[in-house]
Amino acid sequence: MDRRSFIKKAGVVTAGAAASTTLAAPAIAQGNRTLTMVTSVPDGFAIFDDAAQLAADYITAMSDGQLTINKMPAGSLVGAFEVFDAVSSGQADLYHSAEYYFLNQHPGFAFFTSVPFGMTGQEITSWYHHRGGKELHHNLAGLFNLKPFLCGNTAMQPGGWFNTEISSADDLQGLRFRMPGQGGQVLGRLGASVQNIPGGEIYQALASGQIDGAEWIGPFADERLGFQEVTNTYYTAGFHEPGSALALSFNLEVWESLTPAQQQIVEVACEAVHANNLSMSLAENGAALARLQAAGVQAREFPDDVWDAFGSAAAEVREENMADPLYAEIADSYFASLAESSSWFELGDGEYMRQRNRVNAG
Amino acid sequence: MDRRSFIKKAGVVTAGAAASTTLAAPAIAQGNRTLTMVTSVPDGFAIFDDAAQLAADYITAMSDGQLTINKMPAGSLVGAFEVFDAVSSGQADLYHSAEYYFLNQHPGFAFFTSVPFGMTGQEITSWYHHRGGKELHHNLAGLFNLKPFLCGNTAMQPGGWFNTEISSADDLQGLRFRMPGQGGQVLGRLGASVQNIPGGEIYQALASGQIDGAEWIGPFADERLGFQEVTNTYYTAGFHEPGSALALSFNLEVWESLTPAQQQIVEVACEAVHANNLSMSLAENGAALARLQAAGVQAREFPDDVWDAFGSAAAEVREENMADPLYAEIADSYFASLAESSSWFELGDGEYMRQRNRVNAG
Repeated sequence: MDRRSFIKKAGVVTAGAAASTTLAAPAIAQGNRTLTMVTSVPDGFAIFDDAAQLAADYITAMSDGQLTINKMPAGSLVGAFEVFDAVSSGQADLYHSAEYYFLNQHPGFAFFTSVPFGMTGQEITSWYHHRGGKELHHNLAGLFNLKPFLCGNTAMQPGGWFNTEISSADDLQGLRFRMPGQGGQVLGRLGASVQNIPGGEIYQALASGQIDGAEWIGPFADERLGFQEVTNTYYTAGFHEPGSALALSFNLEVWESLTPAQQQIVEVACEAVHANNLSMSLAENGAALARLQAAGVQAREFPDDVWDAFGSAAAEVREENMADPLYAEIADSYFASLAESSSWFELGDGEYMRQRNRVNAG
Repeated sequence: MDRRSFIKKAGVVTAGAAASTTLAAPAIAQGNRTLTMVTSVPDGFAIFDDAAQLAADYITAMSDGQLTINKMPAGSLVGAFEVFDAVSSGQADLYHSAEYYFLNQHPGFAFFTSVPFGMTGQEITSWYHHRGGKELHHNLAGLFNLKPFLCGNTAMQPGGWFNTEISSADDLQGLRFRMPGQGGQVLGRLGASVQNIPGGEIYQALASGQIDGAEWIGPFADERLGFQEVTNTYYTAGFHEPGSALALSFNLEVWESLTPAQQQIVEVACEAVHANNLSMSLAENGAALARLQAAGVQAREFPDDVWDAFGSAAAEVREENMADPLYAEIADSYFASLAESSSWFELGDGEYMRQRNRVNAG
């Protein structure tokens, strides 16, 4: 188990970023400005890039031309997973990404995307804006010279695409599967050979046989990538990412160079995009799943004992980093908020939806 | 059954509004402007006024002083239920309210707050931004010289406060109960004596014995009003308002006098406030319910046959206005979107939350 201090590592990165602020200076000028936003997906990727594009559009339109966001997709300025270093160092002004790609920077970033058996999109909104999540996010990212905001949410992610049915946890042994974040660590504990592959490269890895299966986002986004051409067993519920947030994060010096009104425009744009994007999946996934099924895809659910295995491994993964004080602080805040919001949700929305289903079926 | 044409009635109101646009003119000036927003609740009312205040704050801050929103609570300029006419006619620039207060203007406004057995807050976001809800809202409100946006959401509303347990639908006979909108019409069909009372007047009506019971918003907002001092039987799930949207609506001439950037600021602010407010209830209701229970409040759930009675009456109420083409168009769009999003929610989030509860309990 890796007990090194993540804080110490963060300190090194921050120093590097501070030394390189001159790189960011040319982008900081008075009056109308163009800011470079690097992303982790190709242009046009459903849900993920929809969030990045909408944020860029909102900020540009609301600022009346003061700020123009120049979106540079994965691979154009830097690679999908290089956006963190690019913005931290000032090479780019801001990124739009999923921050669990950066667990090697600090494991606490997991909570600002999604963790196994964690929050739905609705629950993370509640934690972020009303139970201290945003402040913890700023504390964490500040160590890396960044100012981040949740800005998009893929909603509940299905278990994914498999080349075989998963009848028991044994079927995961040796499976070469694409899954990032703590979810991937859980699958790894259960014997899978886990790979983290950027969204733009999954189809090729699947089609070439480099991997046996993959999860991406959900029916609507997955259909766009064409996974149904390669494999046809689709698990519609998953343990690993019950509501994955996306984040927009500024280089801290660039952020501090914005006027208060411009900063407010960015914050409110991100809050709106998070909700818009979350509800987009809810709007699109049902129809997309029906199209996939019409094309021969089999929708499946994991049996209870596979969920139990996911649960045990997830608890181990979660404990692994608790010796890091900042990770522990974030985790404690996150799970306290989850316990509170989920118990109310169960009493209110849960009972309502059970009764709505029952009455409508009657 | 009232089969008169609501469109015809709307035509009259629009003509009146057009004639009165000179009233709005003094508020329309170049440069920095102060806009008067009338609301349907007193200042400081939890959730409802939180949404109105946050919208005002976001718009003011993002516009960098170009637009200042002067919030005038219920009763200061006009009464709680008079805000619609005030803005339609140009007496005020915009309102923040719950539009099911205006079913006497057009029954279609019900869908832009909440209808019995209708959408949760998440589902209405999906319909509004991704399945045509916003365009229908603009078509409907345009008949009344208004430009509206969803801007706040109370989340799932509990069944409410009763002075007696509801063991069967017979217990609703003769009950004097505060419930607005189609929910109130449903209770009326089941024999209750239904009253629509503004939020600021419910406590007094309950304490004085004018009514036997009431619903307002949820544990957090209800606790603030002190209903627990008068009655202590609280039904935590309800059929009537599974995710009530609040709306911010501009006088159309005032709206058209805004610059494109200012219009975008208003729209994005409303989208953000809707999500922020929805998640506030999720954050606050659990703890509030625990406090209420500690103070002696009994949490209850309606038995299945009472839910069945609610369901039958709700179906009748829903059909009542289908002869009006615009109502029917909105209803068809709403229920088609609900069917689609709820079936995906059930497969994805539903199965996930069932498994999360099961695994966590194990």
